[in-house]
Amino acid sequence: MKSSYVVGIDVGGQTSKLGVVDARGAVLAQTVIRTDTYDTVEPYIAELAAAVKKVIAESGTEGKIRGVGVGAPNGNYYTGTIEAAPNLRWGHNKVEFAKLLQKAMGGLPVALTNDANAAAVGEMTYGAARGMKNFIMITLGTGVGSGIVINGEVVYGHGGFAGELGHTTAVRSNGRYCNCGKTGCLEAYASAMGVARTAREWLELTDEPSVLRNIETIASKDVYDAAKEGDKLALKIFEFTGKILGRSFADFIAFSAPEAIVLFGGLARAKEFLTAPIEEAMNANVLPMWKNKVKIVYSQLKESDAAILGASALAWEL
Amino acid sequence: MKSSYVVGIDVGGQTSKLGVVDARGAVLAQTVIRTDTYDTVEPYIAELAAAVKKVIAESGTEGKIRGVGVGAPNGNYYTGTIEAAPNLRWGHNKVEFAKLLQKAMGGLPVALTNDANAAAVGEMTYGAARGMKNFIMITLGTGVGSGIVINGEVVYGHGGFAGELGHTTAVRSNGRYCNCGKTGCLEAYASAMGVARTAREWLELTDEPSVLRNIETIASKDVYDAAKEGDKLALKIFEFTGKILGRSFADFIAFSAPEAIVLFGGLARAKEFLTAPIEEAMNANVLPMWKNKVKIVYSQLKESDAAILGASALAWEL
Repeated sequence: MKSSYVVGIDVGGQTSKLGVVDARGAVLAQTVIRTDTYDTVEPYIAELAAAVKKVIAESGTEGKIRGVGVGAPNGNYYTGTIEAAPNLRWGHNKVEFAKLLQKAMGGLPVALTNDANAAAVGEMTYGAARGMKNFIMITLGTGVGSGIVINGEVVYGHGGFAGELGHTTAVRSNGRYCNCGKTGCLEAYASAMGVARTAREWLELTDEPSVLRNIETIASKDVYDAAKEGDKLALKIFEFTGKILGRSFADFIAFSAPEAIVLFGGLARAKEFLTAPIEEAMNANVLPMWKNKVKIVYSQLKESDAAILGASALAWEL
Repeated sequence: MKSSYVVGIDVGGQTSKLGVVDARGAVLAQTVIRTDTYDTVEPYIAELAAAVKKVIAESGTEGKIRGVGVGAPNGNYYTGTIEAAPNLRWGHNKVEFAKLLQKAMGGLPVALTNDANAAAVGEMTYGAARGMKNFIMITLGTGVGSGIVINGEVVYGHGGFAGELGHTTAVRSNGRYCNCGKTGCLEAYASAMGVARTAREWLELTDEPSVLRNIETIASKDVYDAAKEGDKLALKIFEFTGKILGRSFADFIAFSAPEAIVLFGGLARAKEFLTAPIEEAMNANVLPMWKNKVKIVYSQLKESDAAILGASALAWEL
């Protein structure tokens, strides 16, 4: 049973989560360090390596670690670098992350990709996509991320940054401005931000009664809570969001013919309100051969562990 | 030099072209048989096998054929079948094409896929995509077909029919009806049919002068000829068509991050009018990292040989 454990690291803008994981996806030990207290990457890597060594010691897996997987914003699998990541204080330029961490870890192999790709590998290794060779992971968080798996492999494309489905065009005419600089992006509608934006827009444009009118700064969580109470406007917002998602999914299906689309992230918690409109719009917009054939499924990873698990799964391929 | 030749067969609705091809993409001998004179597949396969044997004999390559590649509408690479092909008289149900042909050819291995995938493999083996690992082939013919290559492999997806980019949604509001039953498909705008349709619509909706007003039944070729003469309406039609293509290409790039998009087919002859609007709309709709990075290139296969070459290229992988 040599080398039968992996380390997963999820690099976020504020904190980084890391843990030791076994082959069945159990997190044996984990910890969290700050990401945002460093202006340069070197001292951050030093603290990260120390924390990894600590969890390895805690879990009694010294000498049995196959490798380290890292999920990080703008992570490039091919080069092991993080490139121009606006949310990482030390990541505005190109950072040789994998190389630096591998050196700090005494040569332990390190694989790195972005968070959504890591989530896809995690789901394929331990979760809802086990046994699937072709699926698309959509992460519905603050933004909309994606990881595409074709023939059992994550799609990285030329240059390493394939799978930006949150920035495909969902609305062509008078589409909302997106943070990326484009208009009409899926992310501008179907993210947590997008849902809150829909709520604010609709409250302003209609005089439909809604409990949301009593809330000063609406977040997607408020819309979810209101929908659970049966608030009609909130229910309509999820129907609209699901329809936008489903229409876009239809185009994704025409591309790679996945067996399933796997949803993950905060907004995916609203599955009781999203699934029906997603499936309806998706099946209305695919070619006949795919009608009612592509499953919409939800992540099966425990939410608190999911980021570590996703990142760790990369390391099994090392 | 044993096994250093392949056979390519392009199955069309009316005729089937076949030929013997060497490793550099030279067609050593070729012929054509009718596809549409048979109600069942068996006698067609018998004639096809006889024709293949004839071109092998003509080219002096007996005993040196590695395999046979077939490009056919609705061809499934995984199963070697042709499924529900409306344009093949004997192909309305599922036909075990590869198996039947292999038997008729004395056991010679046979690989089969649809025409656009075959074109992609052809371009990668002998044409404009040599050396590329990630590209998208778009065939602009009567319809819009596509073959997607990721990491050097054609994407077949779950079930075998991935890559139907002609049926992604190009226009969401009041989109044109498409033959597939959906509305707003890329094919309804950016195919030869689509260009002719744009011409007819615009002639009716405006009173802009155009030489196209003198033509009774407008085909895309007429629009091309008019554009070459400087006809303003015809030029606008290509600008519109290119814009529709470019916007869709931007979404394809977000999916698989190709190095290039390769255009092929009758409509691609209008490249002098299409390239600029395609590139402009594409670059206006991609994330900053892909701006001016993805090449628009045109097929480098001799048009008369391209269908045979594409199909033949499949056989090198056998």
